[in-house]
Amino acid sequence: MAAAEEPVLSRRAYGGSKGRLEAFSDGVLAVVITLLALDLHVQADGPGSLAPQLRHEWPSFAAFALSFFVVGVIWVNHHALFALVARVDRTVVFLNLLLLMWVTTIPFSTSALADYLRTGGLDTHLAVLLYGISNEGMALSFTLILRHLLRRQLLRWSPGAGEARGSLRRFGLGTALYPVITLVGFFAPVVMLLLYAAQTGFYMVEQTPILPPSTSD
Amino acid sequence: MAAAEEPVLSRRAYGGSKGRLEAFSDGVLAVVITLLALDLHVQADGPGSLAPQLRHEWPSFAAFALSFFVVGVIWVNHHALFALVARVDRTVVFLNLLLLMWVTTIPFSTSALADYLRTGGLDTHLAVLLYGISNEGMALSFTLILRHLLRRQLLRWSPGAGEARGSLRRFGLGTALYPVITLVGFFAPVVMLLLYAAQTGFYMVEQTPILPPSTSD
Amino acid sequence: MAAAEEPVLSRRAYGGSKGRLEAFSDGVLAVVITLLALDLHVQADGPGSLAPQLRHEWPSFAAFALSFFVVGVIWVNHHALFALVARVDRTVVFLNLLLLMWVTTIPFSTSALADYLRTGGLDTHLAVLLYGISNEGMALSFTLILRHLLRRQLLRWSPGAGEARGSLRRFGLGTALYPVITLVGFFAPVVMLLLYAAQTGFYMVEQTPILPPSTSD
Amino acid sequence: MAAAEEPVLSRRAYGGSKGRLEAFSDGVLAVVITLLALDLHVQADGPGSLAPQLRHEWPSFAAFALSFFVVGVIWVNHHALFALVARVDRTVVFLNLLLLMWVTTIPFSTSALADYLRTGGLDTHLAVLLYGISNEGMALSFTLILRHLLRRQLLRWSPGAGEARGSLRRFGLGTALYPVITLVGFFAPVVMLLLYAAQTGFYMVEQTPILPPSTSD
Repeated sequence: MAAAEEPVLSRRAYGGSKGRLEAFSDGVLAVVITLLALDLHVQADGPGSLAPQLRHEWPSFAAFALSFFVVGVIWVNHHALFALVARVDRTVVFLNLLLLMWVTTIPFSTSALADYLRTGGLDTHLAVLLYGISNEGMALSFTLILRHLLRRQLLRWSPGAGEARGSLRRFGLGTALYPVITLVGFFAPVVMLLLYAAQTGFYMVEQTPILPPSTSD
Repeated sequence: MAAAEEPVLSRRAYGGSKGRLEAFSDGVLAVVITLLALDLHVQADGPGSLAPQLRHEWPSFAAFALSFFVVGVIWVNHHALFALVARVDRTVVFLNLLLLMWVTTIPFSTSALADYLRTGGLDTHLAVLLYGISNEGMALSFTLILRHLLRRQLLRWSPGAGEARGSLRRFGLGTALYPVITLVGFFAPVVMLLLYAAQTGFYMVEQTPILPPSTSD
Repeated sequence: MAAAEEPVLSRRAYGGSKGRLEAFSDGVLAVVITLLALDLHVQADGPGSLAPQLRHEWPSFAAFALSFFVVGVIWVNHHALFALVARVDRTVVFLNLLLLMWVTTIPFSTSALADYLRTGGLDTHLAVLLYGISNEGMALSFTLILRHLLRRQLLRWSPGAGEARGSLRRFGLGTALYPVITLVGFFAPVVMLLLYAAQTGFYMVEQTPILPPSTSD
Repeated sequence: MAAAEEPVLSRRAYGGSKGRLEAFSDGVLAVVITLLALDLHVQADGPGSLAPQLRHEWPSFAAFALSFFVVGVIWVNHHALFALVARVDRTVVFLNLLLLMWVTTIPFSTSALADYLRTGGLDTHLAVLLYGISNEGMALSFTLILRHLLRRQLLRWSPGAGEARGSLRRFGLGTALYPVITLVGFFAPVVMLLLYAAQTGFYMVEQTPILPPSTSD
């Protein structure tokens, strides 16, 4: 572990390096992303044969694939952000726990979405809302972490005030997106799924705008 | 792994460095903290629609959020303590296993608490007791680890006898707190939840008193 | 983490080293391989005593052992391939996520196979198909990762054009095998199990042909 | 990761260092040891109130605590053994997978033991046998790993032929113990639990005899 190379004082001030924060986050994200697949299940002693069960479960498959890449993008962003971090303080550790708490609610809200996507009425609205809350919780926690890292200058280099503001503003836009997607979902849940998929797909081809483009090269 | 840098003799005496102890503990804590969310579930083919299920499950949500941060604080303390450790012996490894055993009971006692918080009578008392035992087990194991580390001088530096005693006394106070909170829970379970939350919140803003303040800077 | 040794620019371009990609993949593979065993279960309050339950569950035991080594071989290949990787870019990260997504479907398709192996008819065909899709998805993702690593020269050394083509062709043969095994499974599911076992066994004794033999020594 | 420091040829011959083998094994062992606690559960909507459920579930609690330390000792031994390993070859990787496969059966055989410990008759015998098979499978795999490491001289130092034979013989004694404990379990299951506990407790206070005492200091 990198701890041995840190000056003793900074280590005592927090009590550790970012190595275990990354390892613990990797562990939680790995378990969450794998548990998503637990919601896929069919039963020989269940209601009839396999084919109708698979047909009936398509929302589970769609929700599984969507949430897999939603959590995957969180991992990629976490990885990208913390690679830029020089050291962590106690506040980062607890904001990171807050982020992970929202991440661990994803299998639950995914399962609720899969179960109630087609029932219509209040139940579908509630399931859409739960999924939106999980996503918004993750986005807000991420923004809080970035803001704290910038304010306390915990990154490997010091971005200018303008850069920092621009970077946070772009994240703020992200957190404003989920309420909009959720609102769409109240009227058209399947369109909402496509919007989530489009947004996740966007993150896959585009560089995550954690940092202003000018500092990326 | 850091093992390669250790002198051969000390490595053989125990058979390893603290790296894998930390990695294994991170793994167990990550799985436990994620499994907590498995107790959140709603069912389309369950008893009625989503809204009443969510309303009925509020103790599950409260217990999930509480236990998430209880385990989170354990991870933060574990991280902070072992960052100060120079080397581990066989006893530390088994005391750490004892700590992890109590940690793995948290999803069970959390689930029991959520299920029986409102039934009242003996069942609520038992659920409160189970939750208290899990927490007390963790606190005692932690104190045993700290005491052994201090006695065998396994830390990166040698605290004075007074410092060591003060540090252990402060931990001892912690272990005396859970029986009190549990006793309160026998009469007012919701007040107990708030006390646990307050204590966990205290750990988030305050530096964990693992070390005497005089050695922290 | 190795991140500290990388030049700042390449780190920013991707945002990290291969260390966390390996750690996250290890986590997902470890959880998946352990979850396979969750499909083994007997119940004291179930349909009768233990002996007939065990007799009835033999497809679960066979499917568990098979899938354990299928995922095990994936881990060994992942390990062997990434040991040769010098650096990863964003595309590798997302292709790796795609691979992990297919890996996380293995417990589901294994469970479906165990449940419907003996029912016969369309259900058995569907279960055989699901298992084949999981395996083909993993093989294709792996081939995409290798192709990208070769094209972008992300390996620790530069194989010649001929070597690279030979290596990819051998992988292509692997991806052509699963449809054949699946076709066999439509007519003789148990023969299919033996073919999967034989192929997995082959990987255990033979060096995985990720690299042309000429570069292996 | 330590991979970067290894000579290229040995890395290619296997495709990796022991770092990921240890990380993957830590992951599997951490998930298994945590899943054991999943077998503890009570239900508000189950058969009656909490107290009788807890009373009825005592074999689950005993089996959980026992198996927790059985898996814990496996982790400690794995840790101690691989700390002495200089490099791993393909055979070690697959023997380690075999060990992990038996480890992942522990939650299943523990659960079967807890369910059928008191039913008596053939069912109890079968449950005792399943638990014995899991333990024997782990012990045999461990012995195979040690034998291979000694034969191929993959340890950090070269023990003499006598030392190596002595070390293997002591392990062989371990593998002969489980059939005896299982036989006892056929007649007195509770005595068997105590024997397993005694053996596990012995490993906690005594140095695991992986190596001859003469090489330990």
